[in-house]
Amino acid sequence: MNFKSDNEAPAHPLILDAIAEANRGMATAYAEDAWSRRLDRAFSNLFETDCSVLPLATGTAANSVTLAAASPVWGAVMCHRQAHIANDEGGAPEFYTHGAKLVLLDGADGKLRADDLGRAIDAAGTHGVHNVKPSVVSITQATECGTSYRPDEISAIAEAAHARELPLHMDGARFANAVAWLDATPAQATWKSGVDVLSFGATKNGALTAEAIVVFGHPEWLEAMHRMRKRGGHLLSKMRYVSAQLLAMLDADLWLELAGHANAMAARLAEAIEAHPETSLAWPVEANEVFMRWRPEKLAALKAQGFEFHIWPGHDDLARLVCSFATQPDDVRRLVDALESGASAS
Amino acid sequence: MNFKSDNEAPAHPLILDAIAEANRGMATAYAEDAWSRRLDRAFSNLFETDCSVLPLATGTAANSVTLAAASPVWGAVMCHRQAHIANDEGGAPEFYTHGAKLVLLDGADGKLRADDLGRAIDAAGTHGVHNVKPSVVSITQATECGTSYRPDEISAIAEAAHARELPLHMDGARFANAVAWLDATPAQATWKSGVDVLSFGATKNGALTAEAIVVFGHPEWLEAMHRMRKRGGHLLSKMRYVSAQLLAMLDADLWLELAGHANAMAARLAEAIEAHPETSLAWPVEANEVFMRWRPEKLAALKAQGFEFHIWPGHDDLARLVCSFATQPDDVRRLVDALESGASAS
Amino acid sequence: MNFKSDNEAPAHPLILDAIAEANRGMATAYAEDAWSRRLDRAFSNLFETDCSVLPLATGTAANSVTLAAASPVWGAVMCHRQAHIANDEGGAPEFYTHGAKLVLLDGADGKLRADDLGRAIDAAGTHGVHNVKPSVVSITQATECGTSYRPDEISAIAEAAHARELPLHMDGARFANAVAWLDATPAQATWKSGVDVLSFGATKNGALTAEAIVVFGHPEWLEAMHRMRKRGGHLLSKMRYVSAQLLAMLDADLWLELAGHANAMAARLAEAIEAHPETSLAWPVEANEVFMRWRPEKLAALKAQGFEFHIWPGHDDLARLVCSFATQPDDVRRLVDALESGASAS
Amino acid sequence: MNFKSDNEAPAHPLILDAIAEANRGMATAYAEDAWSRRLDRAFSNLFETDCSVLPLATGTAANSVTLAAASPVWGAVMCHRQAHIANDEGGAPEFYTHGAKLVLLDGADGKLRADDLGRAIDAAGTHGVHNVKPSVVSITQATECGTSYRPDEISAIAEAAHARELPLHMDGARFANAVAWLDATPAQATWKSGVDVLSFGATKNGALTAEAIVVFGHPEWLEAMHRMRKRGGHLLSKMRYVSAQLLAMLDADLWLELAGHANAMAARLAEAIEAHPETSLAWPVEANEVFMRWRPEKLAALKAQGFEFHIWPGHDDLARLVCSFATQPDDVRRLVDALESGASAS
Repeated sequence: MNFKSDNEAPAHPLILDAIAEANRGMATAYAEDAWSRRLDRAFSNLFETDCSVLPLATGTAANSVTLAAASPVWGAVMCHRQAHIANDEGGAPEFYTHGAKLVLLDGADGKLRADDLGRAIDAAGTHGVHNVKPSVVSITQATECGTSYRPDEISAIAEAAHARELPLHMDGARFANAVAWLDATPAQATWKSGVDVLSFGATKNGALTAEAIVVFGHPEWLEAMHRMRKRGGHLLSKMRYVSAQLLAMLDADLWLELAGHANAMAARLAEAIEAHPETSLAWPVEANEVFMRWRPEKLAALKAQGFEFHIWPGHDDLARLVCSFATQPDDVRRLVDALESGASAS
Repeated sequence: MNFKSDNEAPAHPLILDAIAEANRGMATAYAEDAWSRRLDRAFSNLFETDCSVLPLATGTAANSVTLAAASPVWGAVMCHRQAHIANDEGGAPEFYTHGAKLVLLDGADGKLRADDLGRAIDAAGTHGVHNVKPSVVSITQATECGTSYRPDEISAIAEAAHARELPLHMDGARFANAVAWLDATPAQATWKSGVDVLSFGATKNGALTAEAIVVFGHPEWLEAMHRMRKRGGHLLSKMRYVSAQLLAMLDADLWLELAGHANAMAARLAEAIEAHPETSLAWPVEANEVFMRWRPEKLAALKAQGFEFHIWPGHDDLARLVCSFATQPDDVRRLVDALESGASAS
Repeated sequence: MNFKSDNEAPAHPLILDAIAEANRGMATAYAEDAWSRRLDRAFSNLFETDCSVLPLATGTAANSVTLAAASPVWGAVMCHRQAHIANDEGGAPEFYTHGAKLVLLDGADGKLRADDLGRAIDAAGTHGVHNVKPSVVSITQATECGTSYRPDEISAIAEAAHARELPLHMDGARFANAVAWLDATPAQATWKSGVDVLSFGATKNGALTAEAIVVFGHPEWLEAMHRMRKRGGHLLSKMRYVSAQLLAMLDADLWLELAGHANAMAARLAEAIEAHPETSLAWPVEANEVFMRWRPEKLAALKAQGFEFHIWPGHDDLARLVCSFATQPDDVRRLVDALESGASAS
Repeated sequence: MNFKSDNEAPAHPLILDAIAEANRGMATAYAEDAWSRRLDRAFSNLFETDCSVLPLATGTAANSVTLAAASPVWGAVMCHRQAHIANDEGGAPEFYTHGAKLVLLDGADGKLRADDLGRAIDAAGTHGVHNVKPSVVSITQATECGTSYRPDEISAIAEAAHARELPLHMDGARFANAVAWLDATPAQATWKSGVDVLSFGATKNGALTAEAIVVFGHPEWLEAMHRMRKRGGHLLSKMRYVSAQLLAMLDADLWLELAGHANAMAARLAEAIEAHPETSLAWPVEANEVFMRWRPEKLAALKAQGFEFHIWPGHDDLARLVCSFATQPDDVRRLVDALESGASAS
């Protein structure tokens, strides 16, 4: 039973069907094909506003190309200390931005707080050219702690950013999970709350490999994004296969159905953990990730029983359990059983 | 009838089968899966020597990551004036190498000549730190002119490079077509002739999206390659699907079968062009690309009949006709008929 | 009376004399002149070991070129949260290293602590290519808080770094002040305590504009340093004038004499601050910088009387008072008088 | 007798006087001093229009910071194949622009021709994101061949550039020599002929180390220039000494007097070379550089007599002889004598 990452799940059958469907005859290369050309319309419908969409193969590329378009090379990206862009992308944001600095901010539950952010921006650039210049705010939705920003939290952050002329980027590797969990439309969770650009993730949510940059307004960024996607080697010649995956995800709201299932599996797990006498949740479960505290030897015992998951770096009593579209109720049931039978009292 | 590019062809059915086959259950992410782990062995068998293989989604990334590992940032990449890395990758090599310079050399038939290369390297770095420093030689196989380097030509280039302590990179976006055309083994076409690292292309040859860096020796490059692949956003989380394509290509020599078919289609076309009273070949046809000279109004007439192809930039009497695994004998026959019926005499 | 920065002081007369002396006849350009060629020997004598010296015009360039030679582009520079390289160089280290990350560590009195450092290095790179890779440790001597590392503190840091295969860089913009304050030789304060490379500052210490990279061992860095100095536009054609300044500084230990004077002025100030009923020192005064706490309105009153100094960003009750070779005992006396007469009781 | 380079000359005594003059008391650091603040006005007077001026220590930095402000990272700098930025700056333009490409164009006498330039720009970007994008035109005045562009030649180039929305940069390392030679005002030689930004060189013309970026219009570049000057480590803390040199150069047109002398020395030499039966000029002498053709053994004989000069790389019969403000009529006379007595007939 693999709870290591939603990245380890396969692709959903409908995604493979969409690829097979796209595999007919010749198609113009380099994102000039019929599928790629439909993306702007499809995402504009979903988000209830005109938006510009660039398909890519990885979330790291989506984030990095976006930051590079939105930040000058002497800029500073304000983000949470836990942010994926800061910790897990091997320096890709620094590479694409040509050395912009990531300024790491604290905040409970993996979330930036608007007033902390405002103060940090104000403090960061007081010495003119001797400092780097705060240029973009980036938040992750759902966060690296498995929590989700509410629209009003996003709005407050956007206001703090916009008041200082910084745009707001949302790393939505698990955007689907957040939207499925929130009582909000995609529009409410993004541009209506002040998000300027979204990295829309599909790979973790059952695609084979498909991500998209979704830009709300900001035509001034588009040339840079297109140029940098190419310059980074991310303009696939046969982009139709990525775009077909994205279209399949949006079709009949498959993306929300898959994310909803993953969330439900996580919720079931969270319920058991909270009810358990010895385990606890490190953070509220508001998407498809569950962070469970238990004694290290107990976590080791679970692993010995064949449950796969990651121990949080530097915290040997903290397990990260990730559910995906492919997680079966039976997998969860077995893990819950193992928790219960693992209680010291038993 | 589309002769625009082998990039516009779909994926071969066996490639889709391999993806479906790989789509079973969970698999460790980020190229730690079973398929990716088999690549070193599979390519080592093919090339009859130990080699290290990094799968990636695009040839631009494969070339750029390689050049970045092999060149210091103050280096100079010696290549042909027509090289894809110089003209068609949107500055990706400069991006990944952090500003190394591409030094453009002339040479008939799209090929570097060993003695020209030697002289150019010697001349380029005479002023020490005031110059950039020649650091890598890069050739394309098959070339941008549709010709193929013979092993002895490669050996001479490698000797000129190695004598000056520069490694030799081969951009093999159409390596399959070159090998299928040459009377040579993959080993003879590469490391036995002095190639240090190969960008092995599969996408143009019927894959969905799959390329590989194949390193012969040079363990000192591997960390840089792995780091830069990640830093460029090219370490796909679900890499198994790329690796499965590569394995399928190597299986039963599918890669050579597909390339051989494309070459045969091109040869048929070349024969007709040579026999025709008004058309001629700009370069020998030694792979799957055919460069045909004809009067501009004749080329326009062909387009009007529904034949799709590119006019060579700056040369309105030069058409590039590319065949692929998906080109049908009927497509070629119709084009040959159109040539013949388009002759002015008729 | 200007206590804003030692950067605001003029050049010492002997420095101008040395420039005039160097201004005779023709001299080979680009650091191939007689003065520049004497630097290795002069610094080797000073440091009692063979060292390689590169003159430059700014400390930012010295630090950045050094970090770029010592770190791969995917590296991480471990430094104190207050470090000049992190806060005051406008992103130059990120520029020269092509986006290496600066990892900011806490530590009392502006100093890294060896055990914290070791833990931080161990934690930073646990996820392989998904992380950046700790590559260099950089400390500032004297620190940004006006304190000086003792040789045993440096040794402990060097051990923590070297045990993990990271070299140790010392940003010595105020190295002279630290050495003048410590009971240690230049050798003891650097390579004998494990320092691998030093940015030797002279500009703040009475030069017109002169800094040097001093490398202890590490011949493998030299090509990168020379190339990057040129590539950054820092290989002055008339380098003789920079080198002549450095030689003049070393001549008869002028550098220590000037720094000793600045330190003595700072010590006098510190004594008065400690003796004062309302003021206090934020950090021990172990070089030429004095950080004085006083009520904001009192600091404002001092400014109104014509004393110039900086308020520490974000701390309106903290004044930074910097002494230099040019600070006169009278300047200090007047400031001490102002402190005393400014006491609330008076 | 040193004819190697004007870089090997000392500084003019008035320059040292200006430095000594500036060496009084404290001055605000980082180009906020009184001297630096006067530059905009002084250069605006000289050029008869409002301009923005950034002092720097090297011409490589001036050129590179300028190109970085004027070109996106995916841009292409159109320049002559002989350009200093392309051959002699160790890749600094690529470094500062983060990998923009230098496109090398041919042209007699070291000069770009407007119509060639127009065609090259048109051809370079036809494939959209697959190409880099022509972004700046850069010319050198006086050129690397010792010739000078006439204002009408500059205007034609500017028109070709501006018609395609590219700005025109002039690398004026020897701008003084060109202006002194031309029958033109500084304004006519620059913005009145369409130059958008000038690297104004003083170091080769008798300064110790002083260059300036002079921007005509284009306020949108200024932030980038200021940020990149800092980021490159070129914002000297004691900038007053650079600015004082520039002001001294402009004072009473010292810059033109010094350049005029150097030109006169070169003209005298050129006259002798043309009159000589065996020597010839490779290019017209229109500044302070003389390119003399003579048999290699004759050039060797001159060197043996103590005349110092460079042989042009790859051309063993071509000597570059550079005059400077410090070249004495006697030096020239001796060289002329040596030419005459070296004639084979003698």
